[in-house]
Amino acid sequence: MSGSSTIYRSSTTAPVNIAVIKYWGKRDTALNLPTNSSLSVTLSQKSLRTHTTASCSESYSGPDSLILNGDKEDIQSSKRTQACLKHLRSLRQQLEAKDTSLPKLSKLTLRLVSANNFPTAAGLASSAAGFAALVRAIADLYELPQSPQELSLIARQGSGSACRSLMGGYVAWRAGTKEDGSDSLAEEVASVSHWPQMRALILVVSAEKKGVPSTAGMQTTVETSTLSPARFKDIVPKRMQDIEKAIQERDFETFARITMQDSNSFHAICLDSWPPIHYLNDVSRAAMNAVETANRKAGKLIAAYTFDAGPNAVIYYLEENAHKVAGVIKNILPWTSGWEGEFGEAIPPNEFGSLEQKTLMTLKAGVSRVICTAVGGGPEKVENHLIDEQGNAIRD
Amino acid sequence: MSGSSTIYRSSTTAPVNIAVIKYWGKRDTALNLPTNSSLSVTLSQKSLRTHTTASCSESYSGPDSLILNGDKEDIQSSKRTQACLKHLRSLRQQLEAKDTSLPKLSKLTLRLVSANNFPTAAGLASSAAGFAALVRAIADLYELPQSPQELSLIARQGSGSACRSLMGGYVAWRAGTKEDGSDSLAEEVASVSHWPQMRALILVVSAEKKGVPSTAGMQTTVETSTLSPARFKDIVPKRMQDIEKAIQERDFETFARITMQDSNSFHAICLDSWPPIHYLNDVSRAAMNAVETANRKAGKLIAAYTFDAGPNAVIYYLEENAHKVAGVIKNILPWTSGWEGEFGEAIPPNEFGSLEQKTLMTLKAGVSRVICTAVGGGPEKVENHLIDEQGNAIRD
Repeated sequence: MSGSSTIYRSSTTAPVNIAVIKYWGKRDTALNLPTNSSLSVTLSQKSLRTHTTASCSESYSGPDSLILNGDKEDIQSSKRTQACLKHLRSLRQQLEAKDTSLPKLSKLTLRLVSANNFPTAAGLASSAAGFAALVRAIADLYELPQSPQELSLIARQGSGSACRSLMGGYVAWRAGTKEDGSDSLAEEVASVSHWPQMRALILVVSAEKKGVPSTAGMQTTVETSTLSPARFKDIVPKRMQDIEKAIQERDFETFARITMQDSNSFHAICLDSWPPIHYLNDVSRAAMNAVETANRKAGKLIAAYTFDAGPNAVIYYLEENAHKVAGVIKNILPWTSGWEGEFGEAIPPNEFGSLEQKTLMTLKAGVSRVICTAVGGGPEKVENHLIDEQGNAIRD
Repeated sequence: MSGSSTIYRSSTTAPVNIAVIKYWGKRDTALNLPTNSSLSVTLSQKSLRTHTTASCSESYSGPDSLILNGDKEDIQSSKRTQACLKHLRSLRQQLEAKDTSLPKLSKLTLRLVSANNFPTAAGLASSAAGFAALVRAIADLYELPQSPQELSLIARQGSGSACRSLMGGYVAWRAGTKEDGSDSLAEEVASVSHWPQMRALILVVSAEKKGVPSTAGMQTTVETSTLSPARFKDIVPKRMQDIEKAIQERDFETFARITMQDSNSFHAICLDSWPPIHYLNDVSRAAMNAVETANRKAGKLIAAYTFDAGPNAVIYYLEENAHKVAGVIKNILPWTSGWEGEFGEAIPPNEFGSLEQKTLMTLKAGVSRVICTAVGGGPEKVENHLIDEQGNAIRD
């Protein structure tokens, strides 16, 4: 390594997002083109984020590399990562071709170092934040002029839902119709400031065993579920319209109902797949029951559950109802870790009188930690680098 | 009561049936007309049956009455029971009008006594066997000439699936298209003797709580599940054709696949209902897992699970595979009651090497009893009456 070469570095943090209209099914597996549009809430990076530094230098040799949470990843054989890197390099090359005074960064070896602030064992889909951070960090390193929406096309090729983590607030991923995927991208439906009161409580369920991986599961559903075509074609498009309107109007009841219905619809087509795919377990159902009880007690929908490809529950609610929703869970699980921090400490515990004993016991036995968070902003450029001035990885 | 009046009596036993293509959804709630055709296997009365005596006499006064498992039932306010009685009486009246020498039984008070040979707590749908026995016993009492198929129209009005318990073997309930329901009736697809090797192992799951009643649940699904129209309109009609062919050809693999897929499809539209309906729990999923393991080990489908509106698993298999299917369960649950009797004693226990520890533990903790049975015949007239010669109920 030549000590005199410049070490170019750029760092970013990127958020996790949790869909309220689910992405489940690809119409093109190579390009990660979905069978339907989807919509998510970007979650605060105070609770969950990926931090990534992208770096390049003439002093680096050999292939591009990625260190993720301290371990070297094999990115050479990852077609998805290679597709992102190739696309970003070609955009840099266009800049270099137009302005020959620019350093030829596109020719240099990339070193990437990435770290999550949450345990992988939490079973949270970290690939969305991971690919969003990777794309954002390299785009900044290359000083690309592309908008988050344009970059979302690239992140999508890394991991479908990653395209939604390039923006904050309420984000739609438009399925698009073009074969090359050039219209399959993310779009901000509403910013954080439009509806900042949205809160999310995540119940992390002690995972006994990893379920069917989502890429394989999606293909099984697309190929075998006879109920799924109606979901792809008619049901989701209608729900997208309705939930976008609900978000515009800050209509929580409609938002909640559609969120729960769409989660159930997604798990229904999983069960309808052959062989059937199960992500929900008795703990998940206890969480659904707790939400239903809170809603019944309030006489209106003040909480909404949603489940991704695993048993963890994500419960959305508005800040004003914190004690009626998250407060009940806090009272059931006071010693579970995760109540510390800005969003969790603000939750006043609440009695759980009307919850069934069985629901209580199942939640006590099955929830291993909670995460208290809220709607949040998109990726942020940071000066805290994970690669030092000599080009070596620093532990986060 | 006048001691000199004749006490007319007729008794029958009727079987339980377990659907492999599920009935879930009514297009007419008053007439019990279904949204789709369904198909079931009639189960042996050696294991599960309802025994009913119908009786009438000039010496009986007051309203018609029914004693079920020793308790007086309120049949006056049961529209469904009243519809059956009214229909049967009118058929008797037609006979009496044609042949005036016949006693006017249609004018007499009916006394009905009925008893199941299995505990109600087992959570098995006893209404099918119950209404089939009631209709058959009264039809015999009235010496009606109608065929089982014609009587199935009447039983259907009592409880939809009851129409399938008027015949043995493999029975289809044709949804029909007429508004008055006159073409919505049961039909024997194949007799017991066509494919007598069919066995069924029922795993009775310790029911913590009764789920959503099926009549209410069906209506919720019809009114709210956006996935259900495809099931009613296209998916089930195709499966009916395919499974009837499989039964004709004694093709167990196709029979098994369709049985499992249709059970999953039914529970999928339940989950897709609003509010969602859950019948499967972690014990049910452990049973599915045990079946999948047996099939994987055999390299072909030798077992098929199906679940009605509750967590109990019904596992179909052929006699020749008893040790590979039921034998594994017998080895897991040797002390669970229900292995005695003709069908259970014949099952050789088998090692369960490849089953996951978690599946084993969940089944051990969650299965309260087993029922070993097989495909069986339709209702049988018996001389063992539940009403004595003085017209009084006898305990079964």
